[in-house]
Amino acid sequence: MTAVGIDAIEIWTGKLRLDLPNTFAPEMGEDPEKYTKGLGLESSSFPDTYEDIVTMGANAAKRLMDRRGLTPDDIGRIDVATESAFDNSKPVSTYIAGCLEQVYDGDFHHANKGERKFACLAGTQSIDDAYNWIKAGRHRGRAALVIATDTALYERGDPGEATQGAGAVAMLITEDPSIVELSTEQGYGSADETDFLKPNQQFPSVDGKRSVQVYLARMREALEDYESVSGDTHPDDFEYIPFHTPFPGMVRKAAVLGYRHMTRDTEVEEELAEEIGMQPREEAYDSREDYEEAIRAYMDELKDTDRYREWYGRAIEPTLGISRSVGNWYTGSVHIARLAALRDALERGKDMTGKKLLVGSYGSGAQAEIHAETVVEGWEDHVDAIEVDDQLARRYDITYDEYELVHDVHNHDKETDVDRFSPPESEFVFTGWGRMNERRYDYVE
Amino acid sequence: MTAVGIDAIEIWTGKLRLDLPNTFAPEMGEDPEKYTKGLGLESSSFPDTYEDIVTMGANAAKRLMDRRGLTPDDIGRIDVATESAFDNSKPVSTYIAGCLEQVYDGDFHHANKGERKFACLAGTQSIDDAYNWIKAGRHRGRAALVIATDTALYERGDPGEATQGAGAVAMLITEDPSIVELSTEQGYGSADETDFLKPNQQFPSVDGKRSVQVYLARMREALEDYESVSGDTHPDDFEYIPFHTPFPGMVRKAAVLGYRHMTRDTEVEEELAEEIGMQPREEAYDSREDYEEAIRAYMDELKDTDRYREWYGRAIEPTLGISRSVGNWYTGSVHIARLAALRDALERGKDMTGKKLLVGSYGSGAQAEIHAETVVEGWEDHVDAIEVDDQLARRYDITYDEYELVHDVHNHDKETDVDRFSPPESEFVFTGWGRMNERRYDYVE
Repeated sequence: MTAVGIDAIEIWTGKLRLDLPNTFAPEMGEDPEKYTKGLGLESSSFPDTYEDIVTMGANAAKRLMDRRGLTPDDIGRIDVATESAFDNSKPVSTYIAGCLEQVYDGDFHHANKGERKFACLAGTQSIDDAYNWIKAGRHRGRAALVIATDTALYERGDPGEATQGAGAVAMLITEDPSIVELSTEQGYGSADETDFLKPNQQFPSVDGKRSVQVYLARMREALEDYESVSGDTHPDDFEYIPFHTPFPGMVRKAAVLGYRHMTRDTEVEEELAEEIGMQPREEAYDSREDYEEAIRAYMDELKDTDRYREWYGRAIEPTLGISRSVGNWYTGSVHIARLAALRDALERGKDMTGKKLLVGSYGSGAQAEIHAETVVEGWEDHVDAIEVDDQLARRYDITYDEYELVHDVHNHDKETDVDRFSPPESEFVFTGWGRMNERRYDYVE
Repeated sequence: MTAVGIDAIEIWTGKLRLDLPNTFAPEMGEDPEKYTKGLGLESSSFPDTYEDIVTMGANAAKRLMDRRGLTPDDIGRIDVATESAFDNSKPVSTYIAGCLEQVYDGDFHHANKGERKFACLAGTQSIDDAYNWIKAGRHRGRAALVIATDTALYERGDPGEATQGAGAVAMLITEDPSIVELSTEQGYGSADETDFLKPNQQFPSVDGKRSVQVYLARMREALEDYESVSGDTHPDDFEYIPFHTPFPGMVRKAAVLGYRHMTRDTEVEEELAEEIGMQPREEAYDSREDYEEAIRAYMDELKDTDRYREWYGRAIEPTLGISRSVGNWYTGSVHIARLAALRDALERGKDMTGKKLLVGSYGSGAQAEIHAETVVEGWEDHVDAIEVDDQLARRYDITYDEYELVHDVHNHDKETDVDRFSPPESEFVFTGWGRMNERRYDYVE
């Protein structure tokens, strides 16, 4: 079977930076540790006045095409995943292709363009579509360009305001990929949930408590479904486990649940038994509630064991490295978690070839998807070439007053006239609206 | 190679009917023939007060599942295509799955749900995704349920008002399908166009003249791209050619362009030469404009030849049979064109097994896709079982005053209190909003 997977990755962060403990917390009258320890966040990325989902997506895509020396003829499909769309009919991929056609010879007229929506899950779904398209033999030797791009903004005063973010991840899906190969096996956990919605509105309606429960319930279902086709999983099978990261604190909850599930009936459970006992079994309890209470108590003890902490520090903590300083990128979130993991491996000089990742994607509404990825030979050079640190460091640090202004700029219901904070250079920028209310873009040298 | 294609089809029309020549034309002060002859439309379907894209899609899906005796476990993915979504994050497929779970034992928790957006094209893109998923070996023996559902409404007074419509098409995509097998070959014609948009708004901004030009340009590009992988096409290769049908008059324009393209350098061109001359060749003209003018003149004569009219009457006219009485169903439109063709073949007692259809899908913004389908043995029984005439005949005929009321009901910017026009029976209905602005649904016995 031909290997199909991710051949190249580039990111584009919104060019502004909001410092959560030092700028946001004091204005909220909150302890800075609420952000750094509780949510696990240091700062958020925001789009400058001339940035939006199109510019960020097109800029990430251009960076990817330039680095790999690609022309439009090399691309057979462009799929955009977003939950920040500004049009109910015309897909964002057409705008992004229009941008790229301004700077490359040739065009994307024979590339299939699309847009997928399922909260934060659609980036992974778009990778799956691209994988299937290649496996089905319809790609004519060409690659798929998948772009996950979002501006994750909340109503001012909403609890979600602390977890905002903005950025795009561009990924090239090909045969014989250079970074990771995707598993055929997939697991799904999916239900009609009312945890996070945007009903005819830009900013979300969120039931925060429900959202956490649903994330965990669907992720568990997806893992069980994945195991039904791949066989049982074990924590030692996977070098890293990147999860969708609305904020790092959420992943802390998911990780202990996943570890407990994977270690049940394994030598790990037995080895831990001396310290914290065996895992509760449902048949030993009178009610489902009692059983769930016992499971919660077990997990509380589990997460303080050395064995768990060692695993968490190796397999989970490194996946949060980028998220901590950019916030939630919605559809891009799980993809920056994977990237953070690979960068960690590179820094530590790990031999990752043939090693596996277990990738847990999630979208409210709600659905989790679990699949595995196998790192391929030569991955180091391709990960090393991805520009991350420099662009994060180059962000313009906004004051709280500037934050209030830029939030209004990106609020569809407000008209504003705010000067840009950072000068655009060698990038696509939003230039205003046309006569049909279409958004217009130029490339700035 | 395993055959993959469409195994079952069901439609659900909006339950109200607006008579265009007799009810709409007089109020507009227009000649009824503007609608019947010019646009080619007799009437439009509208949703009753308790209908929307979710109820129509769920009702079409339930009809399909009931007729084929399916349970949730038989379905591995539910993909919804729409350009009438009411939420920027939560996909319509989750609402539809939630409806179906009210009436079936079991659930869709391990089915992958999604939503695709590309104007009227996304229904075909969703079928393509399902085909690829099965070909990639990820379906575990299960089928994909693809639902194209839209309420195609325009601002009151917009020229598009005459082409409105509302309905859903549910299709089951499987291995060894019962109706048609899809070709691996696909052709795309795609460009960043500003012909039809819905920028942060429910009703479209349309440049009607540009929209017609773009439809034809992209369709021609897609046909050339298709031929680059399938070899040259010939009108005799295809028993029917279903096109996306925003209104039948648009298809009349596309058909003559397609026929001219397909007959170039064939015996058909030579046989027609005595009557209307050979087709213009670009090298014989001083400018592109002169050449295009000559092509237009050739097509004007071509469409009045007996040979063309015979072909049009056989391959194109029958595809418009349903569209004429329901209007534009956006994502569902090309799928009711295919269905109309197959019903025509059934009525005429044609032996269609092994015969081919050439399917021309289109979405503004803009992209055309061309692929072929091969009718499979036993198709007659499966087409005969699809309920069409009865549900079209059962629609409640609205007066012009009632039309004005129901248009307001479905306008997201208006609050209305209008009584239903027809009683719901054995169907899903919209019951109102929940505390997070989510839309809620019940099944009425």
